[in-house]
Amino acid sequence: MSSTRTPDPNPGWLSEEELAAFRARMPLLYVEALPVRLGGLGEVTEVGLLLRASNEGAMTRALVSGRVMFGETVRDALFRHIEKDLGPMAFPQLPASPTPAHVAEYFPFPGSKYQDPRQHAVSLVFVIPVTGTCEPRQDALEMTWMSTEEVSQPDVLAEMEGGRGSLVRAALASMGVLP
Amino acid sequence: MSSTRTPDPNPGWLSEEELAAFRARMPLLYVEALPVRLGGLGEVTEVGLLLRASNEGAMTRALVSGRVMFGETVRDALFRHIEKDLGPMAFPQLPASPTPAHVAEYFPFPGSKYQDPRQHAVSLVFVIPVTGTCEPRQDALEMTWMSTEEVSQPDVLAEMEGGRGSLVRAALASMGVLP
Amino acid sequence: MSSTRTPDPNPGWLSEEELAAFRARMPLLYVEALPVRLGGLGEVTEVGLLLRASNEGAMTRALVSGRVMFGETVRDALFRHIEKDLGPMAFPQLPASPTPAHVAEYFPFPGSKYQDPRQHAVSLVFVIPVTGTCEPRQDALEMTWMSTEEVSQPDVLAEMEGGRGSLVRAALASMGVLP
Amino acid sequence: MSSTRTPDPNPGWLSEEELAAFRARMPLLYVEALPVRLGGLGEVTEVGLLLRASNEGAMTRALVSGRVMFGETVRDALFRHIEKDLGPMAFPQLPASPTPAHVAEYFPFPGSKYQDPRQHAVSLVFVIPVTGTCEPRQDALEMTWMSTEEVSQPDVLAEMEGGRGSLVRAALASMGVLP
Repeated sequence: MSSTRTPDPNPGWLSEEELAAFRARMPLLYVEALPVRLGGLGEVTEVGLLLRASNEGAMTRALVSGRVMFGETVRDALFRHIEKDLGPMAFPQLPASPTPAHVAEYFPFPGSKYQDPRQHAVSLVFVIPVTGTCEPRQDALEMTWMSTEEVSQPDVLAEMEGGRGSLVRAALASMGVLP
Repeated sequence: MSSTRTPDPNPGWLSEEELAAFRARMPLLYVEALPVRLGGLGEVTEVGLLLRASNEGAMTRALVSGRVMFGETVRDALFRHIEKDLGPMAFPQLPASPTPAHVAEYFPFPGSKYQDPRQHAVSLVFVIPVTGTCEPRQDALEMTWMSTEEVSQPDVLAEMEGGRGSLVRAALASMGVLP
Repeated sequence: MSSTRTPDPNPGWLSEEELAAFRARMPLLYVEALPVRLGGLGEVTEVGLLLRASNEGAMTRALVSGRVMFGETVRDALFRHIEKDLGPMAFPQLPASPTPAHVAEYFPFPGSKYQDPRQHAVSLVFVIPVTGTCEPRQDALEMTWMSTEEVSQPDVLAEMEGGRGSLVRAALASMGVLP
Repeated sequence: MSSTRTPDPNPGWLSEEELAAFRARMPLLYVEALPVRLGGLGEVTEVGLLLRASNEGAMTRALVSGRVMFGETVRDALFRHIEKDLGPMAFPQLPASPTPAHVAEYFPFPGSKYQDPRQHAVSLVFVIPVTGTCEPRQDALEMTWMSTEEVSQPDVLAEMEGGRGSLVRAALASMGVLP
C-alpha cells in the first residue's frame, strides 16, 4: 500500500540531520508492540520481551518499537517493525481495531513517567498475539518468553528502559492478567 | 474448566419452569459475537451474519448469541456458543482482553434501544475473527459473509431482530470500518 | 425510567429465598465503581476506597458495588449504588460510554482470580469521577481518599476482599496511573 | 506544566517554512475532540459541531482539532485546543484515561478513508463532555448543538471535511448512541 502512495522511493527515511532537526521541534509518532502467546480460549499465557544491549552496554529488556513513517499507516508500521524485530516467521495477528491498548508519552525531560533522552515521542501501544517462531534480528540478542507472573516481577520490569516496565504492567492489566 | 468446577452434571441447564421464573425477576447475562474475517494486516474484510427463521416464520439475520451459565467463564460461554452456531471448524480467535467491544441491554419493554420480548438481558458483545470454515448448526439456515459496505446497508441491518442492526453498526465503528 | 417499565412496585427486589435459589443456578450481574478525584486536566489525583467490617469482623477495603435489578439499566444501577454507598452529595460523573473499564468474574470456587463465596457474579467495573462530598452510608465505616501511589501499595491492596486488589490495579492501569 | 519543561518561550511554534518541511516528511500528531452534553445519568444528549468557512469559501462542519507541540502532553494539547475553539468558559471534562476513543489517519493521497490535502496526520480522537458555555473563537462562525439523531443525518455528516462524518459516527457508536 505504501508503494502506491509514495512517489519517492523512500520518502519516509530521513537523513540523520533531518531526523535530528525534527526531534528538536516536533513530537515523533511511534508504535510499540508487546508480543504475547495465547491459549486455546484466547487467554494470555506468555509475554515476550526482547533482550538488548543499551548504548551504555547494559542489558535491557525491550518491546518491539519503531517510528511511523510518512505515508505509512499505523498498521503498516506495526507490521514492519514486528517483522524487523521478530523475523518473518512470527505470524503476528494484527489488531482488527485501530485503537491502541495504551498511549505512552515519552519526554526528554526528567520527571515524566516515560522517558526518552533523544526526543518527545508519542507511542501507540498494542498487545500482539504471535503464533509462529520469533527470531530476533537487528540489535536484539534474544527473545524471552515469560509467564505473566514472571514478567510482573519488579526486577524484570526494572530492567526495561524509559519506564516501560510500567507500560508492560498496564498492558497486562488491559488483558486482565496482571497478578 | 467448567467440568471441574461443577459437581452437578449440568447445573447450568435450567428447566423451562426455572428459566421462566428467572426471566421474570432477574437480568440474564448473555454473550454475543460478530464473526469477522481479517486481511493480512488485521483489517476487517468481511462480516458474517447468520440467517434464521424467527418464531413468526420471517427470515432474520442474527449474531452468535447465548447465555452464560452458572460456573462458566465469559470466555467459555463465548467459545461454546460460537461452536454451537458456527460448527467445530470455525477456529475462532477468542479475545485476549475480557473487556467487550460493547455492552447491549435488552428489555421486554417498548421504547428501549435493544429489545427482547422474553426477558431483560445484558449482553457482552465481542468481535471475533474466525479463520476456518463455518457450518451453521442448530436453527440457523446459513452463514453469509458480506463486505463491510454490504453489511452497513440499511436494508440488511433492518433484517436484524431486537435492534441488533445498531449493534452491528457499533461493532463496525469500533473496528474503524463503519463507512 | 425504571418506574414506567415495571408494573410491580419492586419486582427487582427478591426475597431471601428467591435470591438464594438464583444464586445457586445463575450468574448474577453486578456493577462496581472505583471513585476517583480528577485534577484540572482530567488526570486521576486520588482514589477512594470504602472501609468496611467484613462478616468475620475484619476490616476490609471495598469498592462501590451492587446488583443490577430486573428492568434497570446498567447506568441506573451504577447511579443507585453510588448514591447508596457515597451519599446524595457525591455528584458522580457517570460514563458517557456503556463499555466498562473492566469485567470481573467472581466464582464461589477456589482457584479463580476473583472470588465470592456466595455466588457466581459477573461485574461491570467503571472508574467514576466524583466532584462532591462522599458520606458513606449503609455498612461502610468511612471513605478514604488515597494518592495513586498509596493505593498501589501491596498492603493496601491485600486488604481488599475477593481479589479486588488486582481489580484496582487494573483500573489504575487503564487510567495510565499505575506506578 | 509546559512552562517548566520548555526553556525556549515557544519552541513548539514553528515557522511556516519549518512546518512545510516537516509536513512533507513526517506524520504529524493531532488531537481532535467531539464536544458532547451529558444528561444526569451520563448519557450523551447533544453533540456539538463547529461551523466554519473552508478555504474555498464553503461552509463546513468541524471538530475541535489541532497539533500536539514539542514538549506538550496530549492532555495539555487537548485542553489548549478546546479553549482555543470553544472559549474559556466551556469547562471541558478531560478524560481520565489517555487512550483515545478512536485513532484517525489522514493522508494527502486519494483513496484513504480520512483525507487532509496538507499532510499525513495521525489524530487521537476524544469525546469530551462540556458543562459550560461555548463561545467559538478563531475562524469558527458558530457552535451548533444537535441531538444524536440530527447529527447522524447523512446530510449533516456530509458537510464535514476529510471524511470526518465517519469519525463522528464512530464516536457516537463508541458512546452507544448511534441510531
